[in-house]
Order: sequence, then structure tokens, then C-alpha cells
Amino acid sequence: MAITTKELGSFFKKKGFIYPSSEIYGGVAGLYDYGHLGTKLKHNFENSWRKFFLSLNDNFFEIETANIMHGKVFEASGHLKNFYDPLVRCSKCGLLERADHFIERELKTRAEGLSSEDYDKLINDNNLKCHKCKSKLLPVTVFNLMFPLEMGALSANKSYLRPETAQSPYVNFRLQYEMQRKKLPMGLALIGRAYRNEISPRNLTLRQREFTQAELQIFFNPDNIVNHPDFESIKNVKLRTLMEEDRKKGEVVERTAIELVEKHNLPKFYVYHLAKIQQFYFDIMKIPVKKFRLYQLDDKEKAFYNKYHFDLEIDLTEHGFTEVGGLHYRTDHDLTGHQKVSKQKMEVMEEESGKRFIPHVLELSFGVDRNVYSLLDLGYEEDQERGNVTLNFPRSMTPFFCAVFPLVKKDENLVAKSREIYNELKSCYSCVYDAAASIGRRYARQDELGTKICITVDSQSLEDDTVTLRELDSRSQIRVKSSELNNVLYKYYLGEEFEKLV
Amino acid sequence: MAITTKELGSFFKKKGFIYPSSEIYGGVAGLYDYGHLGTKLKHNFENSWRKFFLSLNDNFFEIETANIMHGKVFEASGHLKNFYDPLVRCSKCGLLERADHFIERELKTRAEGLSSEDYDKLINDNNLKCHKCKSKLLPVTVFNLMFPLEMGALSANKSYLRPETAQSPYVNFRLQYEMQRKKLPMGLALIGRAYRNEISPRNLTLRQREFTQAELQIFFNPDNIVNHPDFESIKNVKLRTLMEEDRKKGEVVERTAIELVEKHNLPKFYVYHLAKIQQFYFDIMKIPVKKFRLYQLDDKEKAFYNKYHFDLEIDLTEHGFTEVGGLHYRTDHDLTGHQKVSKQKMEVMEEESGKRFIPHVLELSFGVDRNVYSLLDLGYEEDQERGNVTLNFPRSMTPFFCAVFPLVKKDENLVAKSREIYNELKSCYSCVYDAAASIGRRYARQDELGTKICITVDSQSLEDDTVTLRELDSRSQIRVKSSELNNVLYKYYLGEEFEKLV
Repeated sequence: MAITTKELGSFFKKKGFIYPSSEIYGGVAGLYDYGHLGTKLKHNFENSWRKFFLSLNDNFFEIETANIMHGKVFEASGHLKNFYDPLVRCSKCGLLERADHFIERELKTRAEGLSSEDYDKLINDNNLKCHKCKSKLLPVTVFNLMFPLEMGALSANKSYLRPETAQSPYVNFRLQYEMQRKKLPMGLALIGRAYRNEISPRNLTLRQREFTQAELQIFFNPDNIVNHPDFESIKNVKLRTLMEEDRKKGEVVERTAIELVEKHNLPKFYVYHLAKIQQFYFDIMKIPVKKFRLYQLDDKEKAFYNKYHFDLEIDLTEHGFTEVGGLHYRTDHDLTGHQKVSKQKMEVMEEESGKRFIPHVLELSFGVDRNVYSLLDLGYEEDQERGNVTLNFPRSMTPFFCAVFPLVKKDENLVAKSREIYNELKSCYSCVYDAAASIGRRYARQDELGTKICITVDSQSLEDDTVTLRELDSRSQIRVKSSELNNVLYKYYLGEEFEKLV
Repeated sequence: MAITTKELGSFFKKKGFIYPSSEIYGGVAGLYDYGHLGTKLKHNFENSWRKFFLSLNDNFFEIETANIMHGKVFEASGHLKNFYDPLVRCSKCGLLERADHFIERELKTRAEGLSSEDYDKLINDNNLKCHKCKSKLLPVTVFNLMFPLEMGALSANKSYLRPETAQSPYVNFRLQYEMQRKKLPMGLALIGRAYRNEISPRNLTLRQREFTQAELQIFFNPDNIVNHPDFESIKNVKLRTLMEEDRKKGEVVERTAIELVEKHNLPKFYVYHLAKIQQFYFDIMKIPVKKFRLYQLDDKEKAFYNKYHFDLEIDLTEHGFTEVGGLHYRTDHDLTGHQKVSKQKMEVMEEESGKRFIPHVLELSFGVDRNVYSLLDLGYEEDQERGNVTLNFPRSMTPFFCAVFPLVKKDENLVAKSREIYNELKSCYSCVYDAAASIGRRYARQDELGTKICITVDSQSLEDDTVTLRELDSRSQIRVKSSELNNVLYKYYLGEEFEKLV
């Protein structure tokens, strides 16, 4: 079970989940491609995410926007001024690394978000040297993480690949608000790519230079942050939190939503979404309870404009608890910035109260690649007995939901019936047809892809029109009328127990 | 009906389909965002495309890849050497334009793909001047259309934003071929973004600097190009072609598939896919027959590596027949290039024949933005009588499939029942709830978004549990049991006539 990221990487590549981009040219650090299975897994995650979060409110919508944005956007957002990473460099061998990563590894402590001076101090106080050649390190410098682009033949304005998707909804806010008849809260969701010129990309898709984010930006009246109309429905939900005060013990404390509001002074609007996010991870992603936590950042760690900030973390095999997303209360930081630089009015007037204000923003942010990585990491299981690998995904996420086999490849009637069943199923389910090798080998092959149900057509099928269904999770089998297959599979997809399908 | 692109642009923006990106900063030429309606329309197109083309063969798969690629990829593909646009510039006012576009407009003739010398000759022979200040033009120069990026703090290798999605499947070919147990033909589909530093982007999303392509690259044994196992099924299909020999008359000639093979020497494998593409445009996109044609490029127009090349064209209101895609037989040009530069073997061995060869590639290429634009352009209808706009989309494409209204907003029972129906429908259909304004105004509002069915809950609904369905296309109404709504809507979605639903 204790597989390393490197070993996982070989498996991902062999099977067609994820592999280095431009691989025949040796790859480019921090860039990955999704093969045929990885693409299905990623799309399933994205569609589940869409369905869950857009259904939270009728006034939440999805937009899709250009990856290249006007330079002024990043003047307003502060990225031009602040989006730098600290760089540590060896005075002798020239080895480069992000200073915080270097210190985190060497000192086994969190070190994100400190100043260059702080890093220099940590390096000097602990007498840290280049981990490769043991020479002295140069003072920490900084490096801007954005990719600039020259647009057109006479590039007048600098443009950039966006370093986070969030700025697109902010820049779109005004227009969409008018279209949605000026209702708040309004949510703008976006699934798209972001680009950061990372100094040391690493750990496969956990830190890339090009990555996919799924984010929901909720614009709301800050007066209403103390409430949420559906708060009652989640008030007793136990949230797996690790707050500032829990750090010493380092253990998750389960706190009810109402407890977070009453004892910890978090606003209901914020806690409601914290609960919904946890629900997504438990109900949709099927993350085992103990593998998930909500990690509260302290003032040093979080961006200055985030008033409340919890990371969503999943316990990965090699890396331990790892950030896969976050819930950020960004206040009016971004819209105020855009109002100032663009001279466009971001202020709105609420009809009922007549009050004027710049909407505040609650950001639900998810790293799609990291979430997909987590599904693979947690789903991976080496079966010592059978000598093969099984991937366990939620039913709604798995790349192929079902497979159809003729028991014997050479029997034309079996093949014809199998193809018929396959052709019918493939219009509704992600389905694969396989006729090659022994039935045991075919089961093993599908187990390795995470295929939930294998359907075998045998000689009995030709007589009584039944087929064998074999479930990945339990390895047990049932026989079902082939005319009822569609119905039975749909029940299973929705969550019915396998044994209860007959 | 004769709406200009500019007028369409205002409508798109007002409603939330498409608008300039970074718009509060004055936009960036050639970059557009999709608003909440445009995003749904685009995703519906993409999903329909996926479903149709991936189902052509069990050995066709989708991949999703990084937008940034290794510089060597474009050495191999020829983009570094050849991907230039001709640039014409005024000697006095400095006005810049693509030379071919300039000549096409001034001389009303196709001028794509000529040499700088040819352009200079056309300019001199026809005594063309700057169309703004009437001054002399400078000799035509060239401009590389790719966006280079410096990766990392010590950028060793140059990388680029891909100028076409096609190179990703080519670079992925070898790995995916191994995974798919070395079967040919193998198809790799990709829906993703491509980036071109266009000199003069224009006409909204018809020529952008960042755009989405949906492409299927089919790798096959060139010996088998003379056949396709399903050719019989399409051999009598009439294809709307405009071939080289038809240019003088300028009229489409309907030719059967078998005629194209026998009289025009096109291989069956190529013609089969031409027929399937036309089927997609007629059956899925519902393009009126006369608005679609397959336009054959001549040797001057097509890229030198394309042995056969038809553009897929749709007749747009302002622009006439416009390229929205193409079917390109790219031979072994790309894989041979990658084999040469990467030193990785692209040659495969066919088991049955023992023959070794580099697979040839048939590319089915679609500009997603152009197709979405076409849906909007063809769907747009101004109703003089009612004084409003109607959007007519295919049922599978429309952003909102249905809408639910309580007849009276103030009747709590009506509202409760409407919300109940809405909540049930929205898990299956893209559905909108609207309670504001008169029922006529609400119909008009949905007509403008292309919503197919409006469902009204009135006082009778509370008595006999029926609701009114009103169809956009016919404006006629029927009453249906609300318990049967789901079933009735599904039949309509699949194509049943509205009147036959009762």
C-alpha cells in the first residue's frame, strides 16, 4: 500500500492515466498530459463538481474565459507586484530551489509565505547548506511566476497567462451581474487552466506549471455573512477541523457547524460552505473520513486579503495531508482593486435596503489535478495474493463503468450477443468491450482500470437470455436478464448494493 | 434577418453568450469570454461532438494535454520554420494587416497561402494602396504566429503555447498505441485550446488569438485507405461538394459517396469520414441543407502535407460560406517529423501482414468557437411582429432546455408546486425558474435564450395536477400530467414532435 509518487507515476503512465507532456522530447518539467483513462477520470470529477456546486443556488452559473488576460488585470489583483516566489541558490553548483520548499524539507516545518529576510534567517540560524554539494547558499531572491506574452505585431499592452482562474470571474462580475437581474448572492463557477512559472515543479501533478482549477466565486452582501438561509440543514454536521489552537497536538478535532459559529466566531455563510465542501468529499468523492481534514491557516500563512482561510486537505500515501483546495473569504479585495484600476464601478445597490457596497467574495477553490491525483492515490491497491493492482474509484468517477465480454472469443453467437449488449450500453455508460485472453485475465485487466462491473455472455445467455455480472468491490457475481441490464446498472450507479440487484 | 456580426456581437454580450475578454480594461484584441449561456452552448456542442465522433470506432479515445509544449515539437512539425503570416504595412500611417486579408477584401478573391512575392505582385499589379490614408504600402514581410514562453528560472529550452491542438495527439501517439494493444486504426480526440498571435483578429470569435479546437486524429495503415468496413452504409449518401472543377460556376454539386470514389479518385476511407461529418452537421447540428458545403481546396490553398483537403463550410449571414472545420489527410508528415527530431521510433509493425510502416493520419478538425458562432448566427431570428428576438437551436444544443413558471408570483401554492417541479427537472435537464413579470414577457425572455419548452403551473395544476407546456418552435401549447413531465420531456429531447406528446 505504501506506494511512492514515483511508483504511482510509472503506473499512471503504463495504464494511460497521466504522463509527462511532450514525453518523446524528454518532457518539460511541470507539464503533464492525461491519457485516455486520465481524461475520463478528470472529466468525471469536473462534471460531478459542476453538478454539486452549481446546484447550491439557482443564481450560480458557469462561465468559460480566455486563459490570456490583459496586463491591467494583474496590476489590479496585485500579481504584478506580489506574485513572486523566494529562490534559494547554491553559491557553487548553482542548484536552484524554492526557498520555502527547501526549508520545509530540511527543517520539517511549514515555511510558506515568509519574507526573504525570514528565509535567510532560518537558513543562517540552522546553518543550512546546499543539499547537493554542501556549499554555502546565496541570499534568497525572488522570481515572478507569471508568463508574459507579446500580443500582436506591435504589442502595445502586455498580456499574461492567468496565474489563477479567479480573476476571470472578477473581471466578468459587472456584466454577469447585470444579466442576472442584479441579484446577490451570485456565483460564477469556472473550470479552466492556470499557469505559474514554478521554480521547482514536482510530485507529478501535485505541483505543475500548467494546471486546472475548478472554482466558484460567490459575490454577496457582506452584511449577510452572518447568515445563510440553509444553515439549519447543516448546523449539526461534524466538521473535521484542524484549527490554529489544535496545531500543537496536531490532531483533527470534530466540531459541529454551530460550534464553529458560536465558539470560534466564524460567520454562518462561511461555515455553511465549509460543510458543503466536506459533504462533497464524503458523498461524491467518497474520501474515507479519516483521510480528510479542514486545515485553518494562520495569519502568516494566508494571503493578507483572505480574512478566513481553511485548506481542504487529503491524506496522501507519500505526502501525508496535502492541500487539494481551499475556502477563501477574499472580502472586497479583488473587486476594489479592479474598480480602482479599471475606473469601472463595481459598487452595487441593493434594492430592498437601498444600501450601496462593493460585493464581498467567498472563493471555493479546487485543484482539479490534485483531486484527480488523490482519487488515484487513495484508490490504488496492490493485491499481494492475486499479484495485481486494483483501482477503487467512486461509481460516478471511474473511467469505465462497465465492461462486456463474450466468454469465448471464437463462438460467433456469443460475440454477436456481446456486441449487441455492448452497443446498447455504450450509449448510456462509459463501457469497454474485451474479447482477448482468459476471463480471469480480463477481470484483472478491468480491476486495474477500476471498472466497476464486468458483464460476461456465456452459452447459458443464448438459452435463457441471462448474463453474469461481476462486481469489482466484492468480487461476487450475480446473473441478470439481459433485458434488465440497463435498469440494473442504473440502480447500481445510483448506489444500490450489488447483492440487492437481483 | 440580415444581421451584421457587429449587431450579433451586441446581442451576444447583452444576453451573456460571448463578450470581449478583460472587457473592463477595454479588452484584448482577439480574446473572448463565454458568459453563462455561451458556456452552456459551447459545452453542449463539445459533448455532442464527443458522443458522435468517439462512437465511430471502439478504438477512438479522448486525451487532454498541456497547452504549453516543448520547442522541439514545433521544430518537428515545421511551425518554427513555416508558421508565418504575411504582413502588409502602410509606409505612412503604419497601418498593419494580414496581406491575404487585405487583398481578399480589396480584390474580392481568395488569397490565402501565397508567397510574399505573390502578394507584392498582386499589390503592384492592382495598384493597391493603404485603405486608410491611401499611401504606398511597404513590401510584404512575415511574422511568426507562435507565443514563446520562458520556462523556469533558468529557461534552458524554449517552450510554446501550441498553435494547433493536433501536435498533442501526434506526440502522444507512441504511448497510447502501446496502451491500446497496438491496434490500428486508432483515433485520438482532443478538445482544447490553441493560440495564434494573429496580426488582425476580427469578426468576434471567427478569428481569435486563443480558440478552442475539437479534433480527431485517426492513425491508420496507408494501405487500407482504399477501404472502410462501413463504406457500404454511406455509399449512396449525397455529399454537398464544391470541388475544384465547380469553382467557375461557384455552385455546390451533390455527389454520392461512391461517385467521389469512382469518378473523383478519392479513397473510401477519406470519403467515409466526409459523409460522417456531413451527417453530424445535418443530424446533430441541424444545419439547413443549403447552408452547408464541403469545399475542396486546390494545391495552392492547402498545406503542402495535406494530400486531400476539404473545408467544412457554413453559410453565415454577413460572411457567406465560412470555414468551420476541415478533413485533412496529413499522410505521415507529422509522425515522420517527430521520428526524425525525437529519434523515437514512430514506425509500427502490423501483426497480420508483418509489414512495417509509419501510420498515416486523417485529421477531422473543428473550430469550436466558429461552430458555436454558426449556431448563434443561424439560430438568430428577429420577429418583426412581436418585436423580439428568437434563438432557434437544436434541442440538444440549447443552453436551457426548459423553464418553469408559476402563473402568478404571489400565489404561494403555485410557487411551491413550481419549485417542486423545477427541483425535480433540474437534476436531469438544464432548466431555469422564472417568476418575474407577465407570462407573455417570460415567454419572450425564454425565446431570446432559445429555451425549448416553457412549463406553466396555474390554478388548474393544483386541482388536476396538469401543467401547460408551450413549445418555442410552434408557439403551441399542450397540457400534461406533471407526474409524466420527465418522460414527456425526454421524448421531446430525443426528437418527438411536440403535438404528439399528449
